[in-house]
Amino acid sequence: MRALRVDSTLHELPVPAAGDEVRVRVTLSGICNTDLELARGYMAFTGTLGHEFVGVVDDPGTSALPRGQRVVGEINAGCGTCPLCTAGDARHCPTRTVLGILGRDGAHADYLTLPARNLLAVPDGVADLHAVFVEPLAAACGVLERCPLAPGDRVAVIGDGKLGLLCAMVLAAHGANPLLVGKHAGKLAIAAARGIATATDAPPRSFDVVVEASGSPAGFARAVELLTPRGTLVLKSTFHGTTPVDSARIVVDELSVVGSRCGRFAPALELLAGGRIALDPLVSEVISLDRAETAMATAARPGILKVVLSR
Amino acid sequence: MRALRVDSTLHELPVPAAGDEVRVRVTLSGICNTDLELARGYMAFTGTLGHEFVGVVDDPGTSALPRGQRVVGEINAGCGTCPLCTAGDARHCPTRTVLGILGRDGAHADYLTLPARNLLAVPDGVADLHAVFVEPLAAACGVLERCPLAPGDRVAVIGDGKLGLLCAMVLAAHGANPLLVGKHAGKLAIAAARGIATATDAPPRSFDVVVEASGSPAGFARAVELLTPRGTLVLKSTFHGTTPVDSARIVVDELSVVGSRCGRFAPALELLAGGRIALDPLVSEVISLDRAETAMATAARPGILKVVLSR
Repeated sequence: MRALRVDSTLHELPVPAAGDEVRVRVTLSGICNTDLELARGYMAFTGTLGHEFVGVVDDPGTSALPRGQRVVGEINAGCGTCPLCTAGDARHCPTRTVLGILGRDGAHADYLTLPARNLLAVPDGVADLHAVFVEPLAAACGVLERCPLAPGDRVAVIGDGKLGLLCAMVLAAHGANPLLVGKHAGKLAIAAARGIATATDAPPRSFDVVVEASGSPAGFARAVELLTPRGTLVLKSTFHGTTPVDSARIVVDELSVVGSRCGRFAPALELLAGGRIALDPLVSEVISLDRAETAMATAARPGILKVVLSR
Repeated sequence: MRALRVDSTLHELPVPAAGDEVRVRVTLSGICNTDLELARGYMAFTGTLGHEFVGVVDDPGTSALPRGQRVVGEINAGCGTCPLCTAGDARHCPTRTVLGILGRDGAHADYLTLPARNLLAVPDGVADLHAVFVEPLAAACGVLERCPLAPGDRVAVIGDGKLGLLCAMVLAAHGANPLLVGKHAGKLAIAAARGIATATDAPPRSFDVVVEASGSPAGFARAVELLTPRGTLVLKSTFHGTTPVDSARIVVDELSVVGSRCGRFAPALELLAGGRIALDPLVSEVISLDRAETAMATAARPGILKVVLSR
């Protein structure tokens, strides 16, 4: 089968056996900025890239899943036995693997395997091209899991890339009134068309909650500037390397900085099924997996939103 | 009157008028690491240093405070009319002044003034040499205000200086079982004598809460190393400059970083009145205000804990 490896080139690999997992034939997979970071050395990953996908059950293995069932998959595969896993949340299992990120081949391939407990059926009304967004949409929903909003909270999202747009749309869908701060008129217009306030700059010390989704080391300092005393910065961006932080400002203004990684898929699937998030404007290109190398280069171009790999 | 200014030298200044505040004759004042940072340029402060004191009411101004009343004083003087101040918490009033730190002459002098609402009577059983610790002790209590502990939380405090020792003792007094991590056998012994576990190192990813009170830029990264996923880092140290932070670690492990500055005096006075904190071992030297310049140099020496200025 075809597989886009961390060296950003397409390889021919054997189709994986289901083993004690489920083999999924991937229909679509989405290229994430994390894929680009992984290709640059982040996490020292070796393997097949890709953690955003929709597919169909190809070999259910020992599970009761029907062959042909359309599925998406939570990307953290836990041990299944530690206290975190038995409590139903593998996201911080200390021995977890993560699809296309940590110790597990990913979704930019013809087939992948995941444990049956990671797979969720896609509701009938949700198109593949929307279902492939469930992972980043869940990550956006994860902001609310880590930082529940109080009524009247003034909220800003920094970054008008895919993740920033999704965060702003999720927050708006949950009744918040976020300001999306970005640099690109075309991207801001996607949010504005959904009634979300947008700006290229924002007044300092004016927000109770700032979501940093710019993917840039400079975003941290920018987010801190926007916060009122006792405000909360939700960090979404992952990148290789360190960021200079004015920790005295965190102490003096008693800020909270809260990391947020993966969200749960169930609330994201609900949002998808309700058609409450505008996903079509986020798709910049759909490119065949045969042209995955070109697709990675395309995804790295400024101004590009989601690049989806088709089969 | 004598006043230790931010240039670390003693000046002769006029005795301040009470005006619409209360004039306090300072009995003792404590030198804080923040004083040393201010002398190095932190906050661009100009004025008289010192924010830890005990004194007596010298001129009550328009207040009903009895002359001669022994008092300590909350250091944040708010506008009194903004929503934060009217809610009874001036600590984040946007136009506040802060005793000896921001726009207000401090306590390393013969006299100071503060609004009457900032002053609290010292209970009779509390000695001056203990009462002078109320401000840093309140700051240590502030950890619990910003990060309430859950039963069973594994807690570490990094830094065996004055603030670290006070934090460890406050946490122990509140039923936590903190590990104090430091570098100095003599300082760690002060905590150990109070039944607090101490160590010069600690296993990584082993603590739910880490209080960073080392006063060193390296403390941030060290604290992050010790935290389990979804753990909380409470930042207490303020210093000039930036700290390199691995923000991906904060995101991937979904850590929380919580700044904590000033605490309220009332719970600290309760601890003092109950004699529950060992303060005598924290006093390295009591030096006359006449020798304030020497005292600042002494306070900056490695291994020194609290230097108290007497009158």
